[in-house]
Amino acid sequence: MENQEAILKLLLEALEVNTSSAVKTEETYEIPVGVSNRHIHLSQADMNCLFGEGYQMAKMKDLSQPGQYACKETVTICGPKGAIEKVRVLGPVRSYTQVEVLVGDCFKLGVAPEIRLSGDLHGTPGITLVGPKGSVQITEGVVVAQRHIHMNCQDAKRLGVEDGEVVTVEISGLRGGTYSNVAIRANDASALEFHVDTEEANAMHIHSSSKIKILK
Amino acid sequence: MENQEAILKLLLEALEVNTSSAVKTEETYEIPVGVSNRHIHLSQADMNCLFGEGYQMAKMKDLSQPGQYACKETVTICGPKGAIEKVRVLGPVRSYTQVEVLVGDCFKLGVAPEIRLSGDLHGTPGITLVGPKGSVQITEGVVVAQRHIHMNCQDAKRLGVEDGEVVTVEISGLRGGTYSNVAIRANDASALEFHVDTEEANAMHIHSSSKIKILK
Repeated sequence: MENQEAILKLLLEALEVNTSSAVKTEETYEIPVGVSNRHIHLSQADMNCLFGEGYQMAKMKDLSQPGQYACKETVTICGPKGAIEKVRVLGPVRSYTQVEVLVGDCFKLGVAPEIRLSGDLHGTPGITLVGPKGSVQITEGVVVAQRHIHMNCQDAKRLGVEDGEVVTVEISGLRGGTYSNVAIRANDASALEFHVDTEEANAMHIHSSSKIKILK
Repeated sequence: MENQEAILKLLLEALEVNTSSAVKTEETYEIPVGVSNRHIHLSQADMNCLFGEGYQMAKMKDLSQPGQYACKETVTICGPKGAIEKVRVLGPVRSYTQVEVLVGDCFKLGVAPEIRLSGDLHGTPGITLVGPKGSVQITEGVVVAQRHIHMNCQDAKRLGVEDGEVVTVEISGLRGGTYSNVAIRANDASALEFHVDTEEANAMHIHSSSKIKILK
């Protein structure tokens, strides 16, 4: 009898685990999406080389992340196998230059695709940048962006996630599926947005009526 | 006591269900991948218009599916918003012309992306094709390929799937995830291969060491 009670207790505990994990997959939320094409963030030093000493970028339009904007300026990026023209410069200037390309661009340029979060540039490929006033060869800084979700701390609390956490994101539709290893980037300077590049958006056919959810 | 036994039985049954579904997700298999860029299949009539009466395509290389090959010939495809040059012709000729493009191409061409399985062309956009000897305007036939897995009937039996079934495919790696609605195309003229386009391959960073599994 004592044994049977112990078994019952163990079984109830096992069911509890299963039940709570099932409920957890239903704790889902819809998230807006931002789609990025290839672009470049420049340091002031590299900006000076490419556009002339003390050059100031000209804002073309604000982006959805507060304080971030697309500039009128573009540069050409040149790798060992090929070049890509008209790569959009994003502002404001940063303390380091970072080139964000698509995996397809890496084949064209002849550089290895390194999937990284913004700022994690150690050991990434270099490339030559060409502007109207000169060129500069950077020794590292070419990345393919790792998928991430920007949000403020209130969003993070509501969504039950933390800065630095890695989640899976589900995309609805005939071409839908899930993307793994999506990094949560939570701070109070950010607006809620799931960031993917054009290849990632197209592969899942993400469009205005796509539903995007975090699967915990 | 009788009650307790009944509860025990119910609990064991509930656990059984959970256990068997867990085992099912582990019935996985590795599948080779074929990555397609945009391409076109031509009817003999359209081939005649583009390349001249009675033209015969020149084989450039065999593809992995038996009897299929890439030709030396390319065409230009022109939509209301733009054109794409050097679209590879695949052989042999078909009874209908089918243009397989990327979602990104649809924006450039100015046509709506229609995700379809090969041959399902009803209601898809038309486009103008231009070759060295003339041009032809097709009224339908532009598709974005729905993800699918070719296999022979023996593979299907081994993998526990059927022709026409729709499965989810898991891709390993930092940029991995799952693709839903992958159609099984099983017949004895096919070789085992998961077909995706370049955007789908790049979005998941599918490469030679990626592991591809069917999740039932």
